[in-house]
Amino acid sequence: MTAAPATLAAFRTHLDRLPGPDADAIAGARARDAVLTKPPGALGRLEEIAAFLAGWQGRAVPRADRVKVAVFAGNHGIAARGVSAFPPEVTVQMVANFRAGGAAINQLCRAFGAEIEVVALDLDRPTADFTTGPAMTGAELEAALAAGWQTVTPELDLFIAGEMGIGNTTAAAAIATALYGGSGWAGRGTGVDDAGLARKEATVAAALATHAGHLHDPFEVLRRLGGREVAAMTGAILHARILRVPVILDGFIAGAAAAVLDRATPDALDHCLAGHVSGEGAHGRLLQCLGKEPLLSLGLRLGEASGATLALGVVKGAVACHGGMATFAEAGVAKG
Amino acid sequence: MTAAPATLAAFRTHLDRLPGPDADAIAGARARDAVLTKPPGALGRLEEIAAFLAGWQGRAVPRADRVKVAVFAGNHGIAARGVSAFPPEVTVQMVANFRAGGAAINQLCRAFGAEIEVVALDLDRPTADFTTGPAMTGAELEAALAAGWQTVTPELDLFIAGEMGIGNTTAAAAIATALYGGSGWAGRGTGVDDAGLARKEATVAAALATHAGHLHDPFEVLRRLGGREVAAMTGAILHARILRVPVILDGFIAGAAAAVLDRATPDALDHCLAGHVSGEGAHGRLLQCLGKEPLLSLGLRLGEASGATLALGVVKGAVACHGGMATFAEAGVAKG
Repeated sequence: MTAAPATLAAFRTHLDRLPGPDADAIAGARARDAVLTKPPGALGRLEEIAAFLAGWQGRAVPRADRVKVAVFAGNHGIAARGVSAFPPEVTVQMVANFRAGGAAINQLCRAFGAEIEVVALDLDRPTADFTTGPAMTGAELEAALAAGWQTVTPELDLFIAGEMGIGNTTAAAAIATALYGGSGWAGRGTGVDDAGLARKEATVAAALATHAGHLHDPFEVLRRLGGREVAAMTGAILHARILRVPVILDGFIAGAAAAVLDRATPDALDHCLAGHVSGEGAHGRLLQCLGKEPLLSLGLRLGEASGATLALGVVKGAVACHGGMATFAEAGVAKG
Repeated sequence: MTAAPATLAAFRTHLDRLPGPDADAIAGARARDAVLTKPPGALGRLEEIAAFLAGWQGRAVPRADRVKVAVFAGNHGIAARGVSAFPPEVTVQMVANFRAGGAAINQLCRAFGAEIEVVALDLDRPTADFTTGPAMTGAELEAALAAGWQTVTPELDLFIAGEMGIGNTTAAAAIATALYGGSGWAGRGTGVDDAGLARKEATVAAALATHAGHLHDPFEVLRRLGGREVAAMTGAILHARILRVPVILDGFIAGAAAAVLDRATPDALDHCLAGHVSGEGAHGRLLQCLGKEPLLSLGLRLGEASGATLALGVVKGAVACHGGMATFAEAGVAKG
């Protein structure tokens, strides 16, 4: 484990020395794939997943046994602006539900054998309303990045970051707007009606106007428009890269957290698979910006790492095939 | 269990009395879904899957514990025409691999907790070359339908049918051409080159010419152009319907087997989910003919039930969420 950087400056230095995948392990995985009892290419993307994991794990036969799902929760000043179908108290209520094992993510972790860690980030201190000023101070941003960083440990085979925070699709939309420009990044989130969607769009527009001229640095975008759970995911995804732990990205909000790294340093997300494209309107567009093809497209729009953890099933299938199949020679099958 | 019909006529009578899903169980599943701790609709297709399984299983809280994967193997006279990248001996070699646990499907069954049954159908007696006459006699067709029928038992929560048979993408393409018309149903299968694809197209064209005027009845299409493993899947899928056991459809060849029932009786496949759309060129088109939206699209083109069994992961995730999540009342979460 690498100690969490105490300052943003220290955090940034890691971006200048990102490790790459292990080319020998990738070559080893591909060589094994070529002699497994199936036609070449017949397992489609499962073959790519196996080679991808091999590279980041540094072993020709990758594993998916030690998987951690970290769910970060934060509260948002903008929640008071009517940008969610649910009241802000639901964040803390859902954290209790995660801890009691009653949420969707708990069932998915159990189904696919992942460990869950729930990290509640100062829920009694919502971020500031970013339509009138920065969501976080520099110290708050650093604390949130570090909180995420600390959840990732080197022995993990895979890491997944998820979130809960009433109001956070609006924060993610503001981040995406600042990072990529254009409009239409706000969506229906938990299911707001047309009036709620208009309030989200107005909130994003007000934020962009308030912070105009201060949005060139992706980390400053994160500080001004993000939230603690978003920044924690950013910190976790970067630490995973430093440790060469592969990541499965979840939905729109996790994607916005990852996009901060992508805009800061090209190829910063090379260790990430896109688990799914969600039902949140702009998630597909965000994945295109990230250059990621999702594994699943099932209309999920829950957050909590649910889509990524469902995609863990596919990844476990890929690992099981790659590691467990007999070779042509072992099985006495003609190679065609 | 319903005894396997001894004759095609007896088999057909089942199509006139297909049971439907249990409407009360569907209503019960939807009522439960509405109070689970998530925004309405936030689990996307997982919610549909839970209601679908509830209806066919006849219980408001569906299960995915007792899952059987039946892999049927058959040999084809047309394999001598160079329509595969692999020699016909591979069928029997792969059956040995299935039985020894070394194939992709074995790993996927293990990963997702499914039982596997391997059914080798007269591998030493390939079907006749259907470019010059019917692939099967009436008695051979009936035996194959019955062999499939017998693999499905009433206590199953889910059933998946898969296949292995060198040459069988050409048989499936011939069936699809006869059932739906048009051209271009032949694809690259295990990975044939352009010359191999041209031989497949010529084989399908020759078959359609030979059997012209005898292809109005879908079961006659199956007898003339199919194979034993294809007919076994047809028999299994129908028996699953009679027993109200939901089915996850695999790839192009399983789809052709299912299409025989679809063309014989509208709604005959209402108990089936499409597990995936494969990398075989015409599978997406076949699913459109069947009116099915696939759960996965990962470029698999292996057969063996591999795509459907990978989709079992998604289905198990849906069942886990639906059955295991806390309600708003249980968790003390505000409902918005």
